[in-house]
Amino acid sequence: MADVPNREPCASPLDLFNSIAAQGELVRTLKAEKASKDEIDSAVKMLLSLKMSYKAAMGEDYKADCPPRNATPESNSGPDATEASEDFVDPWTVRTSSAKGIDYDKLIVQFGSSKIDKELINRIERATGQRPHRFLRRGIFFSHRDMNQVLDAYENKKPFYLYTGRGPSSEAMHVGHLIPFIFTKWLQDVFNVPLVVQMSDDEKYLWKDLSLDQAYSYTIENAKDIIACGFDINKTFIFSDLEYMGMSSGFYKNVVKIQKHVTFNQVKGIFGFTDSDCIGKISFPAIQAAPSFSNSFPQIFQDKTDIQCLIPCAIDQDPYFRMTRDVAPRIGYPKPALLHSTFFPALQGAQTKMSASDPNSSIFLTDTAKQIKTKVNKHAFSGGRDTVEEHRQFGGNCDVDVSFMYLTFFLEDDDRLEQIRKDYSSGAMLTGELKKTLIDVLQPLIAEHQARRKEVTDEMVKEFMTPRQLTFHFQSFCFDT
Amino acid sequence: MADVPNREPCASPLDLFNSIAAQGELVRTLKAEKASKDEIDSAVKMLLSLKMSYKAAMGEDYKADCPPRNATPESNSGPDATEASEDFVDPWTVRTSSAKGIDYDKLIVQFGSSKIDKELINRIERATGQRPHRFLRRGIFFSHRDMNQVLDAYENKKPFYLYTGRGPSSEAMHVGHLIPFIFTKWLQDVFNVPLVVQMSDDEKYLWKDLSLDQAYSYTIENAKDIIACGFDINKTFIFSDLEYMGMSSGFYKNVVKIQKHVTFNQVKGIFGFTDSDCIGKISFPAIQAAPSFSNSFPQIFQDKTDIQCLIPCAIDQDPYFRMTRDVAPRIGYPKPALLHSTFFPALQGAQTKMSASDPNSSIFLTDTAKQIKTKVNKHAFSGGRDTVEEHRQFGGNCDVDVSFMYLTFFLEDDDRLEQIRKDYSSGAMLTGELKKTLIDVLQPLIAEHQARRKEVTDEMVKEFMTPRQLTFHFQSFCFDT
Repeated sequence: MADVPNREPCASPLDLFNSIAAQGELVRTLKAEKASKDEIDSAVKMLLSLKMSYKAAMGEDYKADCPPRNATPESNSGPDATEASEDFVDPWTVRTSSAKGIDYDKLIVQFGSSKIDKELINRIERATGQRPHRFLRRGIFFSHRDMNQVLDAYENKKPFYLYTGRGPSSEAMHVGHLIPFIFTKWLQDVFNVPLVVQMSDDEKYLWKDLSLDQAYSYTIENAKDIIACGFDINKTFIFSDLEYMGMSSGFYKNVVKIQKHVTFNQVKGIFGFTDSDCIGKISFPAIQAAPSFSNSFPQIFQDKTDIQCLIPCAIDQDPYFRMTRDVAPRIGYPKPALLHSTFFPALQGAQTKMSASDPNSSIFLTDTAKQIKTKVNKHAFSGGRDTVEEHRQFGGNCDVDVSFMYLTFFLEDDDRLEQIRKDYSSGAMLTGELKKTLIDVLQPLIAEHQARRKEVTDEMVKEFMTPRQLTFHFQSFCFDT
Repeated sequence: MADVPNREPCASPLDLFNSIAAQGELVRTLKAEKASKDEIDSAVKMLLSLKMSYKAAMGEDYKADCPPRNATPESNSGPDATEASEDFVDPWTVRTSSAKGIDYDKLIVQFGSSKIDKELINRIERATGQRPHRFLRRGIFFSHRDMNQVLDAYENKKPFYLYTGRGPSSEAMHVGHLIPFIFTKWLQDVFNVPLVVQMSDDEKYLWKDLSLDQAYSYTIENAKDIIACGFDINKTFIFSDLEYMGMSSGFYKNVVKIQKHVTFNQVKGIFGFTDSDCIGKISFPAIQAAPSFSNSFPQIFQDKTDIQCLIPCAIDQDPYFRMTRDVAPRIGYPKPALLHSTFFPALQGAQTKMSASDPNSSIFLTDTAKQIKTKVNKHAFSGGRDTVEEHRQFGGNCDVDVSFMYLTFFLEDDDRLEQIRKDYSSGAMLTGELKKTLIDVLQPLIAEHQARRKEVTDEMVKEFMTPRQLTFHFQSFCFDT
């Protein structure tokens, strides 16, 4: 999946204006042609979402026949805006001016998704009979689309499958990259469902200065780290786009179907592509969308087109799947459901996502115990006070303290986490002690990951990446054909 | 390959202006980055070609910083121009106001290709030891790119391969569709080289109101007509894009490589795509380009990237391959060579290409002897005079007579053709007699095609369409790997 920073920031107001005009035209055409309700609804939703983006960029409502004046592109929006008070999130850029990080409640409104509330978490607990994962308990997976529909299906003993992915941009993965995989493994375990993992090496080849061979070699290296998360080989298919496109009788067909139903205007509006972008980038969103449809994997689902897909991912990937959900009813497929996570903060603070190219911005999966200790002590942004005296008197700020944030991700014990929050906030716990606690959690976690990764053989990678049947929970899912 | 008529006519002057500006920028960047000579040359050629298109559309030279005034798009160019004095040719539209058809000499200048002259024809004769095909003798294949390079390679016992294709837009093929295949079969026979035939069913799905299954079924039906032309099963691979993309370890990789090196600005300039086009159309040119590179067919050429490709096709397909030749050096592959044919005229006259959707516009491969007779007598545009008396006195005009044109395509005997030309021009031969001669040539030709097609079994189609090793002339080509 995409996490490339070096592209044009976002669509200009004029581009957006034109996209809205074109989308309005589409809505009128669909209505005139008496298209299905689903299809019209999807197109209208897309129109509304484009109008919202326009308003955010221009500070005023879209008015037909009144194009934006005097082209002041990106003056009020986009990641480069210097005085931006709004957060900005798309697959390539995440920026906020707040040390607490992105305002996720606002993002839910902006993206039109739903909050994962107590009620939904309770329902997951009832359905699976398992205690909800700490990522759910602590709001790290905080937003969803249609998760209730997935649970309806599950409770009716209908199958679903998981889809997540990774854009293999380098050999090095950091702990933040593991978040979706740790959670997906838990989902796989508690629901007992198959999982497909897309390694979008084609995307990395298109966006970065890489050869095809390099991109594919990163796929293999990253796959080892993913496998080391403990996925069940009988229920997991990991695939390289570059390789699987030439091995599947279903994948390319779905890619072409999606590509027929998305215009350049639309991807321009959603992803901010420009006329200078290569046609590979412009058509790539269809390739990230296609695994949302079960017949992209005939070896697993045969020609079934109606198996519900559930996608756990960081919320910056949502634009791809908003597009996918827009297209789905128009090509006769169910919309994928989604579970969105917050971003894993950089050691330097929650204002930005981490960068795989800056070794000090995070803990890497290859770091030694010593490196982990040094990085946390030296680089983890602290919410503590300037002096021990002040700290004891006023207490630290857990909301901006990166070590504390990391503990919310990795310390399993709720009570202990709460105690640390109290003690650090009151000043009873000093920054050095907090950092020591994090180091004590991270060192064995990374060491154990490294030990598991060492046991991942080339043969295992090959087997995970071989298109084949997978096993499922529901007997009804063993097709008779 | 593309022959769809229903799209926006061509790039607007403003689009072209912007494309030129972007291409100019690319040239400057390449020079600044000290790119290879080949790469810079390609980009400069593309720039010149865009500037020529601009001049043709606007009647004046491109001037930087002086965008076209007051947007009068397509006023002087494009297929919809009512007073167009210039011919217009692109993959979707061929239009001329002259009953003699397109001015092909002008087209050679416009496209920057080379004329197939007597000297080149003699060289082909010397190299193959075979009498040149009537399509060469009569200027039906009239233009080329780098054919001398192919012959150099051949004379040095280096291998090359043929690539042609068909866009399966319906079950029905007409005699005009056979022209590239008849000629390609001859090339295969005299040079003894492998051939790949692309059935671009993905393209037809994207451009037309077809399902994937329909498009694929047209592939199979059309493949039978192609096989009936007599191709050697040991030297010919026919492939459906929809099917082969999922069967080849090389095809998609080349598609992505090409897609990385072509921008939306470029395809806009070359093919006239607009922002309202779907992303499938926008990225399709890479799929027509990819078979020009030998490692798209690992089962035939293994991982060899340097086998020269020769593409026989109608000249309206040239824009795809100009783009391909522009990209080739930038991804380390040889440029494909081309042989271009003129268009096969509609029965109604040479002003237009035929349409598969108008049964009276041509002779179809499914026509009965009686239908052929009726169509020729009733619909073939005649160069004869209004009365027999006038005809005897002034003679007919072979330059606009469609029956005579068809004879130049299908009557093998040069002397007899010349005699007919003389007799009809002098008035010694009447229109009815000329038409009778054509009917006598076409009826057995179609009947024999139908008989051969009947013998094409499903198993044969399957074998032609199975990725496999092919046999070659040159021993040096049996790789030792």
